[in-house]
Amino acid sequence: MSTRPPLEILDSVHHVAVSVKDVKSAVEWYRRNFRCKVSYQDDTWAMLDFANLKLALVLPQQHPPHLAFVHSEADKFGALNTHRDGTRSCYIKDPAGNSVEILAQD
Amino acid sequence: MSTRPPLEILDSVHHVAVSVKDVKSAVEWYRRNFRCKVSYQDDTWAMLDFANLKLALVLPQQHPPHLAFVHSEADKFGALNTHRDGTRSCYIKDPAGNSVEILAQD
Repeated sequence: MSTRPPLEILDSVHHVAVSVKDVKSAVEWYRRNFRCKVSYQDDTWAMLDFANLKLALVLPQQHPPHLAFVHSEADKFGALNTHRDGTRSCYIKDPAGNSVEILAQD
Repeated sequence: MSTRPPLEILDSVHHVAVSVKDVKSAVEWYRRNFRCKVSYQDDTWAMLDFANLKLALVLPQQHPPHLAFVHSEADKFGALNTHRDGTRSCYIKDPAGNSVEILAQD
């Protein structure tokens, strides 16, 4: 963009997914140590809600660890897949090979 | 705790540190693709500010990747080290071996 708004608007990190070996024991550990809410949990992954961020705990062989950003022009990064919860996203890699999910703003 | 406030207060994720191979090119990639601010950068790590989270890009051999939480009772997790910027924290591991930094609220 050639112009920027006077107050810079920053993008948000929607969630971060980190690898665990066992979802149940990881959820218990985070719940025991932090004030967070479990918004989803099965045997392969769980989503914990913190005040400013969602933290996904994933079995890496089934759900790759990644960073997820909300982006106003997500479709410019690739074809968006619609998930069961209605969100739309695509996955790309950063230069280090980290998986990055780009979520549409809608 | 035996009692909870009526409106549950959740803890915050202070920052997330992910591994990169080259700090400069990683910073350029995230800057090109997202609206974020570089609040610190040297050859071994950088800190990017997003709307809701700080994202550290680190050379893993010098700065281990980790999740950092603000906690009201950080000192119960271990002896706190005071950093150059005045923050105090300790590092622990979650059950999967992920490094977790516990930052004091002050």
